[in-house]
Amino acid sequence: MTATRQGTHLYRDPTAPVDDRVRDLLARMTLREKAGQLNQRMYGWDAYRCTPDGGFELTDALHAETERFAGLGALYGLLRADAWSGVDHVTGSGAGDGAELAHLVQRHVVEHSRLGIPTLFVEEVPHGHMALDGTVLPVNLAVGAGWDPGLYERAAAHAAAELRARGGHVALVSALDIARDPRWGRTEECFGEDPYLAARLTEALVRGMQGEREPGGPFAPDKAPVVLKHFAGQGATVGGRNSAESELGCRELHEIHLPAAHAGVRAGAAAVMAAYNEVDGMPCCGNRALLTGLLRHRWGFDGLVMADGLAVDRLARVTGDKVSAGALALDAGVDLSLWDEGFTHLEEAVEQGLVSEEALDQAVGRVLRLKFRLGLFEQPYSAGAFPDPAVGRELSTALARAAVTLLHNDHGVLPVSTGSRIALLGPHADTVAHQLGDYTAPQRPGTGTSVLDALRRTGIDVRHAQGCALTGADLSGIPEAIAEAAASDLAVLVLGGSSARTPGTEFDANGAARTVVSEMTCGEGVDLAGLRLGDAQYALLDAVVATGTPTVVVLIQGRPHVVPDTAAALLTAWYPGPWGGEAIADVLLGLAEPVGRLPVSLPRSAAQLPVHYNHKETEYGGYVDDSAEPLHSFGHGLSYTSFAYGPPRLSGHTVEADLTNTGRRRGRSVAQLYLRRLRATVWPRTLELHGFRAVDLAPGETRTVAFPLGADLRTAVPPGTVVEFRVAESARAALTAVPTQSFTAPEETPL
Amino acid sequence: MTATRQGTHLYRDPTAPVDDRVRDLLARMTLREKAGQLNQRMYGWDAYRCTPDGGFELTDALHAETERFAGLGALYGLLRADAWSGVDHVTGSGAGDGAELAHLVQRHVVEHSRLGIPTLFVEEVPHGHMALDGTVLPVNLAVGAGWDPGLYERAAAHAAAELRARGGHVALVSALDIARDPRWGRTEECFGEDPYLAARLTEALVRGMQGEREPGGPFAPDKAPVVLKHFAGQGATVGGRNSAESELGCRELHEIHLPAAHAGVRAGAAAVMAAYNEVDGMPCCGNRALLTGLLRHRWGFDGLVMADGLAVDRLARVTGDKVSAGALALDAGVDLSLWDEGFTHLEEAVEQGLVSEEALDQAVGRVLRLKFRLGLFEQPYSAGAFPDPAVGRELSTALARAAVTLLHNDHGVLPVSTGSRIALLGPHADTVAHQLGDYTAPQRPGTGTSVLDALRRTGIDVRHAQGCALTGADLSGIPEAIAEAAASDLAVLVLGGSSARTPGTEFDANGAARTVVSEMTCGEGVDLAGLRLGDAQYALLDAVVATGTPTVVVLIQGRPHVVPDTAAALLTAWYPGPWGGEAIADVLLGLAEPVGRLPVSLPRSAAQLPVHYNHKETEYGGYVDDSAEPLHSFGHGLSYTSFAYGPPRLSGHTVEADLTNTGRRRGRSVAQLYLRRLRATVWPRTLELHGFRAVDLAPGETRTVAFPLGADLRTAVPPGTVVEFRVAESARAALTAVPTQSFTAPEETPL
Repeated sequence: MTATRQGTHLYRDPTAPVDDRVRDLLARMTLREKAGQLNQRMYGWDAYRCTPDGGFELTDALHAETERFAGLGALYGLLRADAWSGVDHVTGSGAGDGAELAHLVQRHVVEHSRLGIPTLFVEEVPHGHMALDGTVLPVNLAVGAGWDPGLYERAAAHAAAELRARGGHVALVSALDIARDPRWGRTEECFGEDPYLAARLTEALVRGMQGEREPGGPFAPDKAPVVLKHFAGQGATVGGRNSAESELGCRELHEIHLPAAHAGVRAGAAAVMAAYNEVDGMPCCGNRALLTGLLRHRWGFDGLVMADGLAVDRLARVTGDKVSAGALALDAGVDLSLWDEGFTHLEEAVEQGLVSEEALDQAVGRVLRLKFRLGLFEQPYSAGAFPDPAVGRELSTALARAAVTLLHNDHGVLPVSTGSRIALLGPHADTVAHQLGDYTAPQRPGTGTSVLDALRRTGIDVRHAQGCALTGADLSGIPEAIAEAAASDLAVLVLGGSSARTPGTEFDANGAARTVVSEMTCGEGVDLAGLRLGDAQYALLDAVVATGTPTVVVLIQGRPHVVPDTAAALLTAWYPGPWGGEAIADVLLGLAEPVGRLPVSLPRSAAQLPVHYNHKETEYGGYVDDSAEPLHSFGHGLSYTSFAYGPPRLSGHTVEADLTNTGRRRGRSVAQLYLRRLRATVWPRTLELHGFRAVDLAPGETRTVAFPLGADLRTAVPPGTVVEFRVAESARAALTAVPTQSFTAPEETPL
Repeated sequence: MTATRQGTHLYRDPTAPVDDRVRDLLARMTLREKAGQLNQRMYGWDAYRCTPDGGFELTDALHAETERFAGLGALYGLLRADAWSGVDHVTGSGAGDGAELAHLVQRHVVEHSRLGIPTLFVEEVPHGHMALDGTVLPVNLAVGAGWDPGLYERAAAHAAAELRARGGHVALVSALDIARDPRWGRTEECFGEDPYLAARLTEALVRGMQGEREPGGPFAPDKAPVVLKHFAGQGATVGGRNSAESELGCRELHEIHLPAAHAGVRAGAAAVMAAYNEVDGMPCCGNRALLTGLLRHRWGFDGLVMADGLAVDRLARVTGDKVSAGALALDAGVDLSLWDEGFTHLEEAVEQGLVSEEALDQAVGRVLRLKFRLGLFEQPYSAGAFPDPAVGRELSTALARAAVTLLHNDHGVLPVSTGSRIALLGPHADTVAHQLGDYTAPQRPGTGTSVLDALRRTGIDVRHAQGCALTGADLSGIPEAIAEAAASDLAVLVLGGSSARTPGTEFDANGAARTVVSEMTCGEGVDLAGLRLGDAQYALLDAVVATGTPTVVVLIQGRPHVVPDTAAALLTAWYPGPWGGEAIADVLLGLAEPVGRLPVSLPRSAAQLPVHYNHKETEYGGYVDDSAEPLHSFGHGLSYTSFAYGPPRLSGHTVEADLTNTGRRRGRSVAQLYLRRLRATVWPRTLELHGFRAVDLAPGETRTVAFPLGADLRTAVPPGTVVEFRVAESARAALTAVPTQSFTAPEETPL
């Protein structure tokens, strides 16, 4: 019916240019309909109910919401399955068949929109689509440890295909937050502390999810527009406190916290999410200089800006009420709101002259453009083909394997010698749920592989005792663990934290988790001052090391914790995802090489924060009671073989160095290129990562690794800056590595 | 001879306007002589040697330095007596008679200057002149705890008079650093965490030392031009690391770190010191926007900018060499260097065109102007009359008494009941040296009063046991302390840290203390990650509390330490100076009321940093393992009586509130006025101190305290901001205090 009525309008013509279609449609819309396109007020899981026969029915809430603005701009989390959404396969109340549900809701929206405008299904896809049976990938911090943008691009492509196959459209993905304070519970959502590494992975994410299409062109049915979050500076909030203020200056913001966003925008990201936090007094959602001046005018971004959940309403703290909060956000550059009341009053705000209708039209145009690019007017109900789950599992496992990082390895205790009896201990030894991280849909029982599962499958002689829980100080299980360790050739102690949200977790009105379930020590809203594991884990570590049995500690964690490096070997796998146990076991046994490298510095204590390799070069000696240096440095990670790095040389605009495998095993080194400014207009950092290459080498083999400079250098340093480069296996190694000759950056305007 | 030769020149005419004299003299100077005026290259203690007969002789180093530039711009620390300068009365090698020494050196300089230009004797006067027998005042943090600008002004005046009487001219005083991270060893040199409190004390300092004269006019013989240090943002360096980078944004810098400097400049400060640190990439000594744009153009400052020691040479890290470092600093706005090589090449820099001779002339003019204002051309050798040492002692003791802050007092355990037997315990119970703080000249034996001395003098029954040392984990003295506590009615445990530099301390080439002597836990270069006292102090505290004897903990410290608040009462006296023991004893016994109020928030742990009352108002709940709130809040301090605060009211442009003494003793409440922004253009802080008044009240008495708003308000908030006010006894109390009605700040341009 609706389709017939508007059949002849230009906006209905799929052959017309998108901009013309947008203009045509906008001209037909009422102010109320326009305001509706900018709202994403309700939770998707409130739009439907499961029926006893296994189907769905739409709720009165959805009817009312669609009625209100004669349409629905976007719907958040229709397919989201977790404790928060209340959708949980374990209880059988799940939205198992997403595509069917999406079809039902979309049909309702289209048919109740005077102009037949479809809605956008916006979904959480931080490390895999957060839907039932979505393939869970390792968290961003683990992806950062892999230093492998190509692999991550393929995994991101898989996640996008799953999203579209389930009927979802738009992927919300953390990518822009830089991990500068491990106390922050969302550290796991960061690619690490370094802007260059984060920028390369953000590019890979955008390419993988959106595909490499013409800018502004249509999305393929298995590709999804990405909302890069959070813009900007959220990793810099004081004290690592979630969504607190950031005191950063402009230059620090630009040098550390904006490069990933800039790279994502240049890679064609369809959208960014304006962050909760303020930066030096300006809340991101009300910051026109940031959202319009920098993002659109300077960077040329023409996509959508979505606000974080209820972030627009928060602006009422400065404007005095929510109507003017909405007007401020729209004027600043926010196009699409999430859950806010403020944006539901935009019609009123325009009528009161608080914001111009032109500003409203611009924002609506951006929402409509995305819908046109997704082909929703032509095929509102279609879903892409479901990708092969085996491929998803393979990609997830490969990312996990890439993330496992060997930090120290005394006397080659690893890889495990053939025939060893292993005592596998610790609260993480036999769990999958705690390997996953925050923003993960609950997994069906039997999905994934714990370290114990994986070791047992290899047929190795392994005895298991948990020893203690993740949290608390219950020491009653430690004697059993000691006995197992004492009776074995090697103890493997799997310790760490968890971001698993147990059903029943409570959330406050803003959707932030405030009440923490017993074992949750990380994740959004779970900031940890002391960076400590549960007390019993330290007792277990001490007790097992004291047995004299060579001990390997494996950390599964969403942030750096303070763990004394007292065992014979130490690894971290971050949250490696469902098949992380397999990846860890492969590395322990030497079936896979340890190739992970630290994407963050590991602090010695919370008292010495901040620790980053790329601090400013100041004449500072350390604390009287502690070093200012990390326990293990950014970029660090051992192999089962060893490498020698020859002195780097400048060859034209390329830095080259010869790498030799000086050990007896094949292995992979991640060669890291660091820039050092010798003469500059502002105070320089000690080192800046400026490139990296993974190089596989057979024993005795030498290869030349080459880092072409060029556009990257022009972006990084102003002309006239005198620089040198170093190539090394970690930031710490680079401090004493031989540099190239120095040279002056060419007189060309930086981008 | 020299005087005769230039006798007829205009610059010699004391009746001519200073600007004319400067111009005339400048026109006669060679480039080399001008460059010399901007240098303060040598240490004053290298200018002389003590002779066996108790006199002085000048060194070849002074001869050479004077020869080099045909004069001497300034001489640092001629009268400085401490471990670093090697001048120490205990060994008998002291420069006891400063005026005689200053006379000798000045005569040499004047006679070896072609134009007879005297030198400036620049001295450390951070809390009293750092010369032999200088009256030591409590450190700035203790002054901050006193909330008494009037008293501080009188003490500052005394210190200036001592300085001039000893032949010194210019006082270097820490005043501008804001204590935002207690890990920083120079926290003791800050007036606290709050910009308003610091601004009022900085004004008092300037008024006290310089006197209230016409702007730019002559200094009285007992008044000294002040160099306010450090400009700017040094309290904000990352991790509390001395002279490390500060990542602050402009707004945070302006709101928190610049108000004290602005107040000092408006009060007429003769000079500021450009700081070591950079702010968001710009090193202060090379920051023209800061030193010229803001300071001179916007604030109208016409005084001298001196660089911190070797801070100009540090700029070679960006410029590539020290010659251009000197040029950069001069061009940015530095007039007078300290110890740098860079400024010794200014002649060369001008000749090479790296900096203009006009810039050089401006700087030289500022140095000369200060010399004219001091009357040095007329009376180069005179020294002021020595002020009464008894007055100095009285002022120091009064400041100490004002600083003693009672943080908690269970069941009125304090004041000490008449007839109580007291066990006085702890490493601070019987020392004076550790009460003094950094930048203190060594005291003659017998100077000052320890807590034990003071208690004994009152005739009270007191037994003493040290229990443990300030540092280390030696527990051998604890049993004796336990025995004394168990046998007494009350245990008073005096714990804390120390900034006492023992002779023999080593310093690096930059003059920063790197090697820490055994008991030094605070002071410049002594940053402390964990904020912990020595381990044995905690053991002593636990053991004494466990005896069951009511226990009072007194902290003597230069920064907040993490001390569990487990005793019956807790006080802090900061470093209260030589007579601090008397002040503490008076408060313990109720001979003086506890009137100190916290100038900084006391953290619960280093892991929860930063803690300030005036953070931004963000929706943040705390850490899962700790609160984000301090143990005791800014502004907190108990009395021996209690007060009730009536609701505040707006009466015209005045906030008024009625205060009643609801207890049974006379007492003093420090009423604190806090501003809260309800509607603003930028994200607001929770609260901002905007006034304070100490009110003495008899039991049952009620008085109205009035805070006139006006110019202060226009400076603090832009017009159109909607504000309310609260009056309370601490920042924490203000959070829940009744506000005034809200109102809109008037449409008038802020200053």
